[in-house]
Amino acid sequence: NFRTGVKILSQSGDHQAASFFKPVEEIMLPPNTFKNKVAFITGGGTGLGKRMTKTLSSLGAQCVIASRKIDVLQNSAEEISQETGNKVHAVQCDVRDPASVQAAVDELIRVAGLPDVVVNNAAGNFISPTEALSPNAWRTITDIVLNGTAYVTLDIGKRLIKEKKGAAFLAITTIYAESGSGFVVPSASAKAGVDALCKSLAGEWGRYGMRFNVIQPGPIKTKGAFSRLDPTGTFEKTMTDRIPVGRLGTSAEIANLVAYLCSDYASWVNGAVIRMDGGEYVFMAGEFNNLVKVTKEQWTLMESLIRQTKGS
Amino acid sequence: NFRTGVKILSQSGDHQAASFFKPVEEIMLPPNTFKNKVAFITGGGTGLGKRMTKTLSSLGAQCVIASRKIDVLQNSAEEISQETGNKVHAVQCDVRDPASVQAAVDELIRVAGLPDVVVNNAAGNFISPTEALSPNAWRTITDIVLNGTAYVTLDIGKRLIKEKKGAAFLAITTIYAESGSGFVVPSASAKAGVDALCKSLAGEWGRYGMRFNVIQPGPIKTKGAFSRLDPTGTFEKTMTDRIPVGRLGTSAEIANLVAYLCSDYASWVNGAVIRMDGGEYVFMAGEFNNLVKVTKEQWTLMESLIRQTKGS
Amino acid sequence: NFRTGVKILSQSGDHQAASFFKPVEEIMLPPNTFKNKVAFITGGGTGLGKRMTKTLSSLGAQCVIASRKIDVLQNSAEEISQETGNKVHAVQCDVRDPASVQAAVDELIRVAGLPDVVVNNAAGNFISPTEALSPNAWRTITDIVLNGTAYVTLDIGKRLIKEKKGAAFLAITTIYAESGSGFVVPSASAKAGVDALCKSLAGEWGRYGMRFNVIQPGPIKTKGAFSRLDPTGTFEKTMTDRIPVGRLGTSAEIANLVAYLCSDYASWVNGAVIRMDGGEYVFMAGEFNNLVKVTKEQWTLMESLIRQTKGS
Amino acid sequence: NFRTGVKILSQSGDHQAASFFKPVEEIMLPPNTFKNKVAFITGGGTGLGKRMTKTLSSLGAQCVIASRKIDVLQNSAEEISQETGNKVHAVQCDVRDPASVQAAVDELIRVAGLPDVVVNNAAGNFISPTEALSPNAWRTITDIVLNGTAYVTLDIGKRLIKEKKGAAFLAITTIYAESGSGFVVPSASAKAGVDALCKSLAGEWGRYGMRFNVIQPGPIKTKGAFSRLDPTGTFEKTMTDRIPVGRLGTSAEIANLVAYLCSDYASWVNGAVIRMDGGEYVFMAGEFNNLVKVTKEQWTLMESLIRQTKGS
Ligand SMILES: NC(=O)c1ccc[n+]([C@@H]2O[C@H](COP(=O)([O-])OP(=O)(O)OC[C@H]3O[C@@H](n4cnc5c(N)ncnc54)[C@H](OP(=O)(O)O)[C@@H]3O)[C@@H](O)[C@H]2O)c1
Ligand SMILES: NC(=O)c1ccc[n+]([C@@H]2O[C@H](COP(=O)([O-])OP(=O)(O)OC[C@H]3O[C@@H](n4cnc5c(N)ncnc54)[C@H](OP(=O)(O)O)[C@@H]3O)[C@@H](O)[C@H]2O)c1
Ligand SMILES: NC(=O)c1ccc[n+]([C@@H]2O[C@H](COP(=O)([O-])OP(=O)(O)OC[C@H]3O[C@@H](n4cnc5c(N)ncnc54)[C@H](OP(=O)(O)O)[C@@H]3O)[C@@H](O)[C@H]2O)c1
Ligand SMILES: NC(=O)c1ccc[n+]([C@@H]2O[C@H](COP(=O)([O-])OP(=O)(O)OC[C@H]3O[C@@H](n4cnc5c(N)ncnc54)[C@H](OP(=O)(O)O)[C@@H]3O)[C@@H](O)[C@H]2O)c1
Repeated sequence: NFRTGVKILSQSGDHQAASFFKPVEEIMLPPNTFKNKVAFITGGGTGLGKRMTKTLSSLGAQCVIASRKIDVLQNSAEEISQETGNKVHAVQCDVRDPASVQAAVDELIRVAGLPDVVVNNAAGNFISPTEALSPNAWRTITDIVLNGTAYVTLDIGKRLIKEKKGAAFLAITTIYAESGSGFVVPSASAKAGVDALCKSLAGEWGRYGMRFNVIQPGPIKTKGAFSRLDPTGTFEKTMTDRIPVGRLGTSAEIANLVAYLCSDYASWVNGAVIRMDGGEYVFMAGEFNNLVKVTKEQWTLMESLIRQTKGS
Repeated sequence: NFRTGVKILSQSGDHQAASFFKPVEEIMLPPNTFKNKVAFITGGGTGLGKRMTKTLSSLGAQCVIASRKIDVLQNSAEEISQETGNKVHAVQCDVRDPASVQAAVDELIRVAGLPDVVVNNAAGNFISPTEALSPNAWRTITDIVLNGTAYVTLDIGKRLIKEKKGAAFLAITTIYAESGSGFVVPSASAKAGVDALCKSLAGEWGRYGMRFNVIQPGPIKTKGAFSRLDPTGTFEKTMTDRIPVGRLGTSAEIANLVAYLCSDYASWVNGAVIRMDGGEYVFMAGEFNNLVKVTKEQWTLMESLIRQTKGS
Repeated sequence: NFRTGVKILSQSGDHQAASFFKPVEEIMLPPNTFKNKVAFITGGGTGLGKRMTKTLSSLGAQCVIASRKIDVLQNSAEEISQETGNKVHAVQCDVRDPASVQAAVDELIRVAGLPDVVVNNAAGNFISPTEALSPNAWRTITDIVLNGTAYVTLDIGKRLIKEKKGAAFLAITTIYAESGSGFVVPSASAKAGVDALCKSLAGEWGRYGMRFNVIQPGPIKTKGAFSRLDPTGTFEKTMTDRIPVGRLGTSAEIANLVAYLCSDYASWVNGAVIRMDGGEYVFMAGEFNNLVKVTKEQWTLMESLIRQTKGS
Repeated sequence: NFRTGVKILSQSGDHQAASFFKPVEEIMLPPNTFKNKVAFITGGGTGLGKRMTKTLSSLGAQCVIASRKIDVLQNSAEEISQETGNKVHAVQCDVRDPASVQAAVDELIRVAGLPDVVVNNAAGNFISPTEALSPNAWRTITDIVLNGTAYVTLDIGKRLIKEKKGAAFLAITTIYAESGSGFVVPSASAKAGVDALCKSLAGEWGRYGMRFNVIQPGPIKTKGAFSRLDPTGTFEKTMTDRIPVGRLGTSAEIANLVAYLCSDYASWVNGAVIRMDGGEYVFMAGEFNNLVKVTKEQWTLMESLIRQTKGS
């Protein structure tokens, strides 16, 4: 049976830890934190981006969301506007295409003005053995993730510089941007590129009033991500088993961190790359962490063996 | 003249960037976020620790601050209690001494109960050529910074495990924990050790309901730090010159990030190491960032030279 | 005067340190280490790549070098063949174009067979304020550096897997892949992507007999790099001033490390990212390293001020 | 049964990969590379240190090995001297004690002179749940690993500076110095401190002719390490299963890398931290690497499910 094939740790699965770490769904920042601010969110019509948009909108921002599917965007925009009472605009944009980006930014400025907040959240990804990828499949991912982020950033950044206006930029990458990972190699490479892009411009464009930060999320259940990264539903338990906090993250939690980083409370946070993953990354990477499975009795045995050891 | 001896970048010094990045002094989290919570802060009587304590206390926490100088602690405790209306306790503790730590934690539990929040903020540091350090000077720093953090964490952690109670741990390290740095080598080594300690326990102790995170601050003007790291006042301008955000940080900004990380809003943040430095680290580390000094005319010249280049 | 505009550290410039660290030009590995091995080196006709080729060829490898300028390649191939007595082949290839890569690999196999060693060394780069870059300029760099490396790796990797043959892959990136850097942002992003690509495949493709490692060089004077990164010759001194070893690197030094990493002596080195820069990176990144400029007398003054400090 | 309790990946265990990556036992560097050079190796009487000593001695170095057990050291010294024909000296030293270090360095200088090569290889470690550690157990490890390395480095460094002599320093840390790891937390913290110490002095002491580098080994079967880290022999298979190269490392492989880094061939390698682990670290850390267990048929199924996915 396939479902047991990819297990990493044994199947305790009760995840008592999770009872200590209940997700908070409420918005954290004070009302009107983003009053009179404009936020531009790519991929803002679905998944994490939609929730970020809702949070920023609730906090007073005028949001503009952009991606390829205009109908999805319009539905989300309307839904959020109605809930928060603040206007959300939908703009069609394929971030791979500089002309489409330019047109979308023109539209952004027309409907809302130059942004105070830019969230590079759009991405594409799917699991595959790397040897099964065509050059075209490779390029599709790096085009969306790395070049797309660059085109949006270049286009908006140039206009901000011209108008001497500052802004807070944020990119959503992933925990495996740091380590790399097999089976999502174009994504790992492109996301690592985005991390470097943000750290680079944090150094170069601070003088123009722009800040750049990154959130690296661990697994959060969205249709977009999980349908392409865990199509059979097998992987979810494996991941939960190795997250010390005992559960997946929620989009509300990411949205609160996004709001903080894009707000003036974080105006001294620049060039930071922030992992939010319940501890999954450090758990996986730490060579001896799988000893969580060792029982009390086994520890007693091992301790006595270690004590008996003499010399090297 | 000495003051020019340690300049790194030329003296533009206007720091226009700072006008974009005004520090926010207000508290960010909703009132009562830490209602009925107990927070233990080492080094909480001065500098950054004092401000963290004030912020947590304002948000409803019962705070216990601990360090060597009981009079300083008592003054700070009283001052904050009066301002926030929530009790702050002062407990004498030398973190280098396990017995002193144990006594302080006994006292913590006696006056307030097991903590929900533990901030390992106490530290010692001073600049010196490494060849001028005695083994004793070396050990003093690693004893406070690394072993002290470990003793506090071990003592409280064991009691929490026994009582099946969770908690959020936070350590304050420094941006040079990552890169290392000359002239503060015992501090760099010990702080890197603290980062590893926190990442390790983020993996191991999540199952007991504990989270562990780190803030790596850049320069923030406190008497404790600046009197020992910049005794002649020479270095401050140098640092400001290479911070893209154009200014030092404030203790209020750190305190807001501390409060977030120790609150339930961050219950999925575990094993994270968060730089807060206005971008100083990425600016220093990036090989070509000193080209910020190049003028428009020089760029025009260089661009034309580059265009004329043929081949390799 | 422009030349003083970008100085970072003051102009001591004697660089006594360099006298301790004389570069060794001789080849390190035993003769015939690469006997009966085939090595494919992109960008192998110039600069660092040419020297790597010479070293591998001297050690017995049959080398195939590939880049756009076939005349340059042919000259280098002939020169090296004559010197080492081992055949070097020149193959035209634009790594940005998957079809060109495929044709070049066909040719590689035709003339020499499947490779045992693959060095992804080709790259493009130039300094520029990021706001002066068009989307096209951005894409040119990421296409060569990241996608080009991927196309070569995918094409050769698939064939190796099919033939159940192993190989050692090596990529040449840069010290600023880690930190990012302003003014070379497309290169920083794409090189960070290459680092992630190599770490990812080190995990995924080990089972097929392939190893993947990275060298991150600091500044080494080649026409290709320096004409585009230091067109006015201003920057070289600045860099030398902050390299603890007191000098730039040499292509012979890189070539010896390349040969080691691609040899069977390093068969347990996989997923490693190795900085070779004389210490420039850690020197730049470490917050207090500019105190190297402080004189003995100033230290005496500072030490006495620090000793007088009481409390925090 | 305990042995199945700590399995991480399923038990394929055939490790075909290893057939591609045969360890080379021969010495890599040219004869006499260390002719007229003096090397000081802590912990040089056993395990990895003994093999490094043998390699350096074979290459012409006069070696001085130091640790607590003088009989073990003397046996190893004699054995190696006889094999290589070059004198190896044994010196008793407990690196935790500055006076013992000073006496050992006095002895080193008396018998061989100031060293050209210093390898900080001595260490202590054992697995344990962190909550089972006393403050004393914690301190024992940090005293050996971090303070011990510092005392040796400070003592020798000061004498080298005084005599204006350069040297190559190398420290042996571990792959989990970077990520941290549960169940070996004092070791993880102290080793991370050693990494920072080396990076710091790479920046600060280059001007005195000293270089500092680090090797982070993965698992290599020595009695000293495995008896305390895998007392029941359970863990070895787990580790091998997640090393892409399909096998543990050998001490000969480490010794060749040590010799390179301490030789003049590496005189431009400074401040480098080099992982040598067959790819274990990147494999563990990469979130999707456990998909190596997915079969061809499962991939076909998953690919078709992914293709059917529409939207996000
Ligand atoms: N969920 C997780 O577990 C997880 C973990 C780590 C990182 N992340 C990151 O979080 C971000 C959001 O992911 P998600 O989980 O919310 O998935 P998602 O709902 O699929 O979000 C991806 C968004 O990107 C947009 N997009 C894709 N291609 C585009 C293009 N060419 N131009 C413009 N927009 C494009 C999509 O909209 P259209 O289809 O309309 O274009 C979609 O709204 C991504 O950056 C992802 O890598 C997610
Ligand atoms: N300010 C900055 O620019 C900066 C930058 C990076 C990191 N940091 C970090 O931020 C933290 C706070 O620093 P700060 O700037 O606020 O300086 P500070 O006011 O000097 O704080 C240090 C605190 O540690 C306490 N402490 C020292 N030795 C102790 C011991 N043996 N046992 C118990 N407590 C001890 C001191 O109190 P007693 O003297 O009463 O013991 C003092 O309250 C430190 O971890 C520091 O490394 C600061
Ligand atoms: N020198 C340094 O200081 C330094 C520092 C850090 C990293 N590096 C890295 O070291 C490597 C070698 O650089 P170098 O200094 O030796 O400079 P170089 O001589 O300019 O080498 C670059 C090579 O890449 C080839 N190339 C460029 N575009 C290509 C394309 N589209 N397709 C195929 N080949 C292409 C060039 O040949 P054609 O023009 O014939 O195509 C050239 O041979 C590069 O990866 C560079 O990033 C160098
Ligand atoms: N083997 C592995 O898998 C592995 C993996 C990663 C890292 N490492 C590192 O590689 C190095 C060598 O380890 P190994 O595997 O070869 O184990 P080992 O044989 O146990 O080596 C440790 C050495 O340290 C010496 N030592 C311990 N305490 C000392 C003290 N207080 N003063 C002076 N010397 C002391 C020991 O000699 P005495 O008992 O005579 O003092 C012994 O020779 C260590 O740094 C270890 O952390 C090993």
